[in-house]
Amino acid sequence: MFKRLTVSAAAVAVCVIASVPFDAGRADDEATPIFGIKMFPGYRDWRLISVAHEEGKLNDLRAILGNDIAVQAYREGNQIFPDGSVIARIAWAYTSSEENNNVFGQRQSFVAGEPKEGVQFMVKDSAKYAATGGWGFAQFFDGKPVEETVIKTCFPCHEPAKAHDFVFTRYAP
Amino acid sequence: MFKRLTVSAAAVAVCVIASVPFDAGRADDEATPIFGIKMFPGYRDWRLISVAHEEGKLNDLRAILGNDIAVQAYREGNQIFPDGSVIARIAWAYTSSEENNNVFGQRQSFVAGEPKEGVQFMVKDSAKYAATGGWGFAQFFDGKPVEETVIKTCFPCHEPAKAHDFVFTRYAP
Repeated sequence: MFKRLTVSAAAVAVCVIASVPFDAGRADDEATPIFGIKMFPGYRDWRLISVAHEEGKLNDLRAILGNDIAVQAYREGNQIFPDGSVIARIAWAYTSSEENNNVFGQRQSFVAGEPKEGVQFMVKDSAKYAATGGWGFAQFFDGKPVEETVIKTCFPCHEPAKAHDFVFTRYAP
Repeated sequence: MFKRLTVSAAAVAVCVIASVPFDAGRADDEATPIFGIKMFPGYRDWRLISVAHEEGKLNDLRAILGNDIAVQAYREGNQIFPDGSVIARIAWAYTSSEENNNVFGQRQSFVAGEPKEGVQFMVKDSAKYAATGGWGFAQFFDGKPVEETVIKTCFPCHEPAKAHDFVFTRYAP
């Protein structure tokens, strides 16, 4: 869901300063390029915003989770997410379930298989990330941030969603 | 995910006694037939267990959420869910997203549309629901429980999942 990006050198400097690790030896303390975002260890406990299925190369089932600030903004119908909002995207292989199909009596059930595509985050900080619509973007595989070339793709892809504060996903009640 | 059921008259009596409403005038205080389960108002805040897509007549995207007891049991890899575990299934219309497809440049994106099929619950109480594998079953539309004929379908459909304590959904990390 989260793609391209460009950002000023000043913003990069701020990010690097903000990302001094607690424990430099651990991969999950590494900050993502450009935005200097570190892994949010508790994200899997966040509340559900919505779910989706992407066909094509992605071929996944995915869930969009939000921290408390993001979920509250969604539920209140805010057009602009407040600073501190964080939205996470997790994804799994789109997997046919033999067990479920046997119960239904036909091939119709697709479930979440192995995790794939790592975890992606959008982090709202309207000052720090002013050059990218107020959002910083991050992606981690096994706690390790992806390369700058990947992170650069986030914001340009999200730009068409400007009318929704650059967020594609709507809240699913 | 949750279908058929039969239960003893004694269990029904227990359920009815246990379901005296706080506010008898509100639909969401009505207990479901057979099992006497009332709506869990906070379920939409529960943590995510997994997601799925059902084709066929259901044609939905769905999320499986769990209360703290259920999620802990999943994460610890318990084979049997402890009493107090509650698992919820919510579902939405499987909906093509024009906005997302335009960004991807092809038709590949399916998102959660309107809510459908109400919300279903499995409630673990190994004594109270001994006749149905220790689980009580419930389904609500707009807070109003479905009819007994529907609830009777829950347990028989879940019986094939006996090796997983009658629960089809696996935890998606």
